[in-house]
Amino acid sequence: MSQRTVSDAGEDGLLGAIFRTLGRDAASRPWVVLGPGDDAAAVRLRPGEVLVASQDDLVEGTHFELRWTDPRLLAGRLFAVGLSDLAAMGRVRPLGVLITSCLPSKLPLDWFLDFLRGVREAAARHRAPVLGGNLARSERVHLSISVLGAGRAGRLIRRTGAKPGDLLCGVGPLGEAAAGLELLRKGRSTGPLVRSFWSPEPLFGAGARLEGLATAMLDNSDGLLRSCRILAEESGVGLRLDLSRALASRALRRFCSERGLDLRRHQLVSAEDYGLVFTVPAGTRLWPDAYPLGRVVRKGRGDALAGRPFEHFL
Amino acid sequence: MSQRTVSDAGEDGLLGAIFRTLGRDAASRPWVVLGPGDDAAAVRLRPGEVLVASQDDLVEGTHFELRWTDPRLLAGRLFAVGLSDLAAMGRVRPLGVLITSCLPSKLPLDWFLDFLRGVREAAARHRAPVLGGNLARSERVHLSISVLGAGRAGRLIRRTGAKPGDLLCGVGPLGEAAAGLELLRKGRSTGPLVRSFWSPEPLFGAGARLEGLATAMLDNSDGLLRSCRILAEESGVGLRLDLSRALASRALRRFCSERGLDLRRHQLVSAEDYGLVFTVPAGTRLWPDAYPLGRVVRKGRGDALAGRPFEHFL
Repeated sequence: MSQRTVSDAGEDGLLGAIFRTLGRDAASRPWVVLGPGDDAAAVRLRPGEVLVASQDDLVEGTHFELRWTDPRLLAGRLFAVGLSDLAAMGRVRPLGVLITSCLPSKLPLDWFLDFLRGVREAAARHRAPVLGGNLARSERVHLSISVLGAGRAGRLIRRTGAKPGDLLCGVGPLGEAAAGLELLRKGRSTGPLVRSFWSPEPLFGAGARLEGLATAMLDNSDGLLRSCRILAEESGVGLRLDLSRALASRALRRFCSERGLDLRRHQLVSAEDYGLVFTVPAGTRLWPDAYPLGRVVRKGRGDALAGRPFEHFL
Repeated sequence: MSQRTVSDAGEDGLLGAIFRTLGRDAASRPWVVLGPGDDAAAVRLRPGEVLVASQDDLVEGTHFELRWTDPRLLAGRLFAVGLSDLAAMGRVRPLGVLITSCLPSKLPLDWFLDFLRGVREAAARHRAPVLGGNLARSERVHLSISVLGAGRAGRLIRRTGAKPGDLLCGVGPLGEAAAGLELLRKGRSTGPLVRSFWSPEPLFGAGARLEGLATAMLDNSDGLLRSCRILAEESGVGLRLDLSRALASRALRRFCSERGLDLRRHQLVSAEDYGLVFTVPAGTRLWPDAYPLGRVVRKGRGDALAGRPFEHFL
């Protein structure tokens, strides 16, 4: 490993590495009019499509620490965290991303080059080429991603449409990543929970299936409880939660039982996952990966988040 | 002034302030399909338009210091820095922005509320509503902006089209903001140079005028010399610079003469402005605000950035 820092490489050196690593991907995508290297990038939508956009960040000291972070995995997580917001809108097709890297002068250059490799892999896997971004100096590593996608105006799934009688459901992990984060902080670097933290999967397939079906949807990145509160408030409804059939891996069950934690309470309050929470009309047949989380009730009437193994009011 | 911090307000308190201050603007714009408050925002383009997008950041400790920063002005600068990249592509219509605010826990809440007021003013002035964004905790203030605009695919002005014989020109300030920044660091807070730093103007009018006219264009945010190097390399040409007719305010002339600085050298190397540098075919009539900066020559033949009052090779 070379001991060069990003400051040794200089802005031109870093830009050169970025273009060498990422430059070609954008040009190979037919919807990209203009990729990295100009003042701005440009992408084409199909007739009838609207642009769907969101922004997310991973901040050293808040979301990760360098001592337990593999930059290649961090790049994958950055993409997933960003793209998950597109999947949470329904059938949305990624168009590309803008990535800003704010880096301390003394950061090893190899760290950044590994990060770029991770970015290239994630961009290819998600068909979301890097269209541009920014480089700046900062005291700690700060990574921003802006995600751009295309969807249909009237088909996007908002947070406002849940109706009393609907089923409340989830898809994707619930509490797995938060357990992985705790293990990472304590020095573990492998295992399914740690993988769950590093490699969340934006659920584009689930989002697309739910088009025309879900009455409301959002991701659970701030924890299920918070997602439910937002959904209840935005839709003007109450919720009764029952987590007894929520997805929980064997590793998560063991993690909780070893620590004397209530599994369902852990799943209710833990953030860091990128699953989806949604509502569908009663009687809707779900596919096997989706699981029930409760039901929608009238606001103010039993306005309760109730369920075994615990009860909680919303 | 209240002594409450952003941590006292909590995430919900901050989000509430954001929606109260910024929520309505997006909804009032006919092209906005979905504004802030969902997983992602959505905007509509007109037939034939492509999305034009860029990203920029202002980082405490790198781009500004809290002790000399008025958050309302900082918000204006953030918009200008971002939107300038759209103007540098030619005739581009702003659609909106995404803004991420990463804030230290102890930051006074009033600082952030003033920043939001500045954001609201800038969004209204530029008809670029805030469509969404992100909030995170960080050790120092870190603000990101993603700008979204609409243009025509074949009409965007790239960096690659300059031809030998073209005139090299500029519009907008050159060296004014860097002088303002130096004064700010030394404790000054008023005057035309300081204003030039805080209130750059994205040159949408100039960008639009140059559609179909300029053979290449970029902004001068990293300094004229760097812009010229990029333009020469991307277009495969050489440049001969002559800054004798470059715009320079009386305040800037005085700033340089008081410090024994060569005005033209200061203008060549100073960053922080958001003017435009562009090339047009010889004989093009420019409007009064634009000024000549030299001419385009063949690469490798007189491949020189030459001019009075100094000579510099590119």
